[in-house]
Amino acid sequence: MIYLDHSATSPPNEEVIQSYVAVSTKYFANPSSLHKLGVEANALFEQATVQIKQLLSMPQGEVIYTSGGTEANNLAIIGYARKNVHLGKHIVTTTIEHASVLEACRALEKEGFTITYLPVDEQGQVVIEQLKEALTDETILVSIMHVNNEMGATQNIRALKEVIQRHSQAVFHVDAVQSFGKIDVPFGIDGADMMSISAHKINGMRGSGALFLRHRYPLEPILYGGGQQQNIRSGTIPLAEAVALAKAMRLAIRTTEREEYRQWKNQMIDHVESLSEIQVVGPHDGAAHIIALAIRGIRGEVAVNFLQQRDIIVSTSSACSSLDGTLSHVAEALKIPKEWATGIIRISLGVTTTGEQIEQLLHALTALNEQVK
Amino acid sequence: MIYLDHSATSPPNEEVIQSYVAVSTKYFANPSSLHKLGVEANALFEQATVQIKQLLSMPQGEVIYTSGGTEANNLAIIGYARKNVHLGKHIVTTTIEHASVLEACRALEKEGFTITYLPVDEQGQVVIEQLKEALTDETILVSIMHVNNEMGATQNIRALKEVIQRHSQAVFHVDAVQSFGKIDVPFGIDGADMMSISAHKINGMRGSGALFLRHRYPLEPILYGGGQQQNIRSGTIPLAEAVALAKAMRLAIRTTEREEYRQWKNQMIDHVESLSEIQVVGPHDGAAHIIALAIRGIRGEVAVNFLQQRDIIVSTSSACSSLDGTLSHVAEALKIPKEWATGIIRISLGVTTTGEQIEQLLHALTALNEQVK
Repeated sequence: MIYLDHSATSPPNEEVIQSYVAVSTKYFANPSSLHKLGVEANALFEQATVQIKQLLSMPQGEVIYTSGGTEANNLAIIGYARKNVHLGKHIVTTTIEHASVLEACRALEKEGFTITYLPVDEQGQVVIEQLKEALTDETILVSIMHVNNEMGATQNIRALKEVIQRHSQAVFHVDAVQSFGKIDVPFGIDGADMMSISAHKINGMRGSGALFLRHRYPLEPILYGGGQQQNIRSGTIPLAEAVALAKAMRLAIRTTEREEYRQWKNQMIDHVESLSEIQVVGPHDGAAHIIALAIRGIRGEVAVNFLQQRDIIVSTSSACSSLDGTLSHVAEALKIPKEWATGIIRISLGVTTTGEQIEQLLHALTALNEQVK
Repeated sequence: MIYLDHSATSPPNEEVIQSYVAVSTKYFANPSSLHKLGVEANALFEQATVQIKQLLSMPQGEVIYTSGGTEANNLAIIGYARKNVHLGKHIVTTTIEHASVLEACRALEKEGFTITYLPVDEQGQVVIEQLKEALTDETILVSIMHVNNEMGATQNIRALKEVIQRHSQAVFHVDAVQSFGKIDVPFGIDGADMMSISAHKINGMRGSGALFLRHRYPLEPILYGGGQQQNIRSGTIPLAEAVALAKAMRLAIRTTEREEYRQWKNQMIDHVESLSEIQVVGPHDGAAHIIALAIRGIRGEVAVNFLQQRDIIVSTSSACSSLDGTLSHVAEALKIPKEWATGIIRISLGVTTTGEQIEQLLHALTALNEQVK
């Protein structure tokens, strides 16, 4: 089985599982308990947090552990907006964000916030000039994803930050779920102020993610309760998840900008150029681990089925939007002609991907092209 | 080490861990993916859900998987209130709820809801007549915990439901985090309409819980995004957590109303009656697995330390409230005299508890009594 759907979810790393199980078993006590088992558990929790801050070079920052990327994005956007409504009621994002950003913004619209959804150009890029024009005195938050989950378009975070910083008081949130561990993510003074990641996208455990804060920004909790995690995220401290996340992050950073990804993406682009019924969607120079292909005149599910009969697992544009049958909002944003837009598949690479697997994919794409011609 | 803090968190069961790891590894695909690995994963997810519904005898009900008891309580209360505000803006709860219920209610107060916090009597019981008086045409939700986490007071869920049903249109939410798997929880027509549980309180995995719905009540999501779980709880489907939760629930139900708990609690009560400086807090006939003791004139931490020097692990009144140093809201609600109220410890039993351990605890309590006399 050739698994090329790493952006939907990635197989958990053996070492990460071992850490998770060892901590769950040996340090099972509640880190909030005052007895010695609790104190030991809490010390381990703080150690994991220190490790993560070191990995991110953010000694002064904060790590808020969440149940995943969705909660991290929701907490950043809804949490920041609700708590800072006195500063303004305007938020800027883009039309190609993940649903957890877009739907969080729609929820805020119902609470009286105004959201600007910036379009992107044909390369999936935010136009800097448009961002600049969108910013007002009322803008309190800008949320822009680093790497798009459906076609790999990558934003220039440093350039965006410069504009945001110069023309507004807004805090800059970056959804780095698809970029962390794949490409370098600018975080800090010249990058994101808040950054979301998801463990299971970097070979970590499902149900675990984090929101990183450059400063202790005031956030209204989404989950209220016992006041854990500086009263920002209540719920029993997820100790094993924290230790496993630190490990998954360390392992992921090692493989950041794995050279083969770019080589394989270029190989796929070259190959697809020779196929009449298939074309690359989005920018060729986007993130190397994601490539979206449009197949003329068929539905994405048909292409997914065709490939899996050859033991190759890819997804339609994204796992999240695969069930409702509507056209991908990213395909819409990129203005892809309808004859192509219904047949989009996403190939996403990960640590288990090999050159051999890519060769087999190329053969299968040739066969698919023949089939639909 | 004698661990008697099972209500703070309980050691994960070996079989549950094995299930969790096996599913995480073998069925790692995203259940929302259309390819065959996704379809397999989704089938397993639905199977776990069916198992849980069978365990609860709720074939028509819904299971919403959450990141734990805190999220389940928040979703029930905030989610129901926000979505059903057109029906009324009044909620009834009690003064002895878990922080995740109380703080969710406080958040709703800021949104314009009126909350009635019912007092409890000296046995920690809601007075049925007071509940009846509190209910109005505006009451949309009643949230009352089944077993109190700090001293084990147990509410008569059937009697409460009868009053709620007769005198209001309110939906009845029961926080069963401390009762599920310990005593029988009435759920359904003569019990809870919505019920929260937490996996790590029943020897399951941390970071996992569920909200059970008797009907498909409309709930506003707390986490917005890809629309998973009937668009009530977005975020990648937590497959391994669901399977592990089903297993933990099955194992927990087997030990429901373990007879030794009652015997040990009675043994502790009898013993404490012979000690001048220690007394039982709350009802003697409450849940058998939780017993709170007040030690005159010392702080709870001192008693916790004294016992842990004898290798006995107990907590102050609860893990959640142990860090902020304030007096337990439950001790306040029970009107415990101040000379006793600062020295409350909680002993909570679980599947690893033995009669031998209880004997050692009794010896240690005698020594503690001598110490403080």
